[in-house]
Amino acid sequence: MSVTQAKGFRAAGVASGIKESGAKDLAVIINDGPDQQAAGVFTSNKVKAAPVKWSLEALKSSGYQADAVVLNSGGANACTGKIGDQDVSDTAQRAAELLDTVADRIQVCSTGLIGERLKIRELVDGLDVALDSASVAGGDDAAEAIMTTDTRSKTAVATTTTGYHIGGMAKGAGMIAPGMATMLAVITTDAQLEAGQLQSMLQQAVALSFNRADSDGCMSTNDTVLLLANSASGVRPDPAEFQAGLNEVCALLARQIIADAEGAQHDIAVTVVNSSTEAEAETIARAVTRSNLFKTAIYGQDPNWGRVISAVGTVDGDYDPDQIDVTINGVQVCRAGGMGEDRSLVDLSPREARVIIDLHAGEHTATIWTNDLTYDYVAVNAEYSS
Amino acid sequence: MSVTQAKGFRAAGVASGIKESGAKDLAVIINDGPDQQAAGVFTSNKVKAAPVKWSLEALKSSGYQADAVVLNSGGANACTGKIGDQDVSDTAQRAAELLDTVADRIQVCSTGLIGERLKIRELVDGLDVALDSASVAGGDDAAEAIMTTDTRSKTAVATTTTGYHIGGMAKGAGMIAPGMATMLAVITTDAQLEAGQLQSMLQQAVALSFNRADSDGCMSTNDTVLLLANSASGVRPDPAEFQAGLNEVCALLARQIIADAEGAQHDIAVTVVNSSTEAEAETIARAVTRSNLFKTAIYGQDPNWGRVISAVGTVDGDYDPDQIDVTINGVQVCRAGGMGEDRSLVDLSPREARVIIDLHAGEHTATIWTNDLTYDYVAVNAEYSS
Repeated sequence: MSVTQAKGFRAAGVASGIKESGAKDLAVIINDGPDQQAAGVFTSNKVKAAPVKWSLEALKSSGYQADAVVLNSGGANACTGKIGDQDVSDTAQRAAELLDTVADRIQVCSTGLIGERLKIRELVDGLDVALDSASVAGGDDAAEAIMTTDTRSKTAVATTTTGYHIGGMAKGAGMIAPGMATMLAVITTDAQLEAGQLQSMLQQAVALSFNRADSDGCMSTNDTVLLLANSASGVRPDPAEFQAGLNEVCALLARQIIADAEGAQHDIAVTVVNSSTEAEAETIARAVTRSNLFKTAIYGQDPNWGRVISAVGTVDGDYDPDQIDVTINGVQVCRAGGMGEDRSLVDLSPREARVIIDLHAGEHTATIWTNDLTYDYVAVNAEYSS
Repeated sequence: MSVTQAKGFRAAGVASGIKESGAKDLAVIINDGPDQQAAGVFTSNKVKAAPVKWSLEALKSSGYQADAVVLNSGGANACTGKIGDQDVSDTAQRAAELLDTVADRIQVCSTGLIGERLKIRELVDGLDVALDSASVAGGDDAAEAIMTTDTRSKTAVATTTTGYHIGGMAKGAGMIAPGMATMLAVITTDAQLEAGQLQSMLQQAVALSFNRADSDGCMSTNDTVLLLANSASGVRPDPAEFQAGLNEVCALLARQIIADAEGAQHDIAVTVVNSSTEAEAETIARAVTRSNLFKTAIYGQDPNWGRVISAVGTVDGDYDPDQIDVTINGVQVCRAGGMGEDRSLVDLSPREARVIIDLHAGEHTATIWTNDLTYDYVAVNAEYSS
């Protein structure tokens, strides 16, 4: 159900012909109200795709309102110049016309190859079909239509019990990075919340979920996370409970993105504990998840803690290298910066690997999720233009 | 000849039994004077190997003097605790005894697996043999003895014509990174220069060479570059000429390290031109060379400029994304931030690839050398504990 779990949302996913394979490539989500509050978090990449520039502007000029989201795979519409801007504008205009609204209440997201013009004719024609067929049953089709190198569609719902719902969908498998993955995500709720509140809640949820999933350190031009709220449940939620539910949906989607990372054979949680600040814990965990040497070692099922500690040491932080403990899948292979338990005791055959780095320097903690670097990562990215 | 190209230096490389393979694993370089001026640049990693800590301290306490350098492969002596410190001290003491000098005039370098104790008995026994057999003919053996995953030994000499010589050797193939590669390098000269001058000249040469070779973004615990000067030529060089010669030797060694990078099939020069500052040019070039997506694309001979420009955009610099041109092997595939010449015109079959990013934002330039990310990089690093 994903984005149609909450009342008052309809969705569709169709094959419009953008993808030559004939797979689904165009998704729409329609918010039937009564409210159309919206929030968005976008790539921090200075090179922003045309739909990102459009959606940022549209949120502002509409006063953070969105009646619908149009998403396509099969083309990023990034680095496409003035024609790319025109294409996204035409898309939004056409959707607005069909929904009897104005273009700046239409959010647009694209994903695929950078630097090639979108098949705009197919997209616009497909829009008619998609908007016409949108239904409460269409959530799963929408999630499927935004896939690129993803092998599975990604949806999640929060376990709220007080009369409102939060559900979402996402795509992303590579280029998963700092300040956000190459990913699109749309989250919907029928709770009653104002746009300003939604925006700060979304930023917090993204910071703790998508921004802590770091597959290959590469940041996209198209990253977008949208949150739509329509008050259809009539419930004004407790903010803390809603935040927890939103965090849960974002974390579930981020976790699915890591689990489907290109070529990955391990999902790896790198947790820094007992750091002097949470920011430093996050920086150090990220340094480890960015190390290709660490990522290839995990692929090779080699509990090579030297590669962990040498990555930690690239961060000139508030800790003593001679105090660091490193535990890999339960075995403390490094103790006080030196040799600990026998590394041959570590079992790295399970899909999930957990690395805990204890700095003994404070009481803060952070976890970054990543995946291993495999032959298949090279294969996917050497052979697929994305 | 490498480190014995300059007058008054002897070297040896022997198999001491540290490496189980029986390959050469211990090198010595002896400076017969008359002077023994020395300079060193070491890893900026907060986790420093025992020999790095030793050599830093020894340079300071000796007033930047070194009679000899002892280098071993087959073990990094990093994260080895107090016993590691004792091992490097014992090594220096033994070398000093045999050379009739004091331990703080002995520099020590190690490379190999982190977190395991050195085979100190083999090393100390081997020292007797190595120091005894050191000769002017031993430069190539020394270069061979410091290899780890290197497939070729690396030596270089400068083309000075005014009566003095500069020559050097290096090792390094993976973990080639920011603020220096996992590499050891020793450069010798028979020119007459003071230690203070040597240190600033070495820092400048390293900044422009080893620090601009970025194979996999990983920084080692053991990186060391030493420069020894003995005045044996009797020539006091023109500083600018000497600096140029030193830059040349460092650049030649750095280039050899990139050319021998683990599993690489392409050597890639990423050059940023017309930047507002040299620092920004370097930061942007480094962001591109750090992108696994870019590196796999080059491996796949895919001139995927979208991956170049999305890496550029991760740097929030003083440029306009809509002005950027990207040229790959002579073809301007991206013009003014959008589509340029047909990407199918790009020939990425040669070993050397050149990417030029024109920011149109100033007049500064910088080049970072890197290599592609291949199946063999994964193989070497998933299967070899280093």
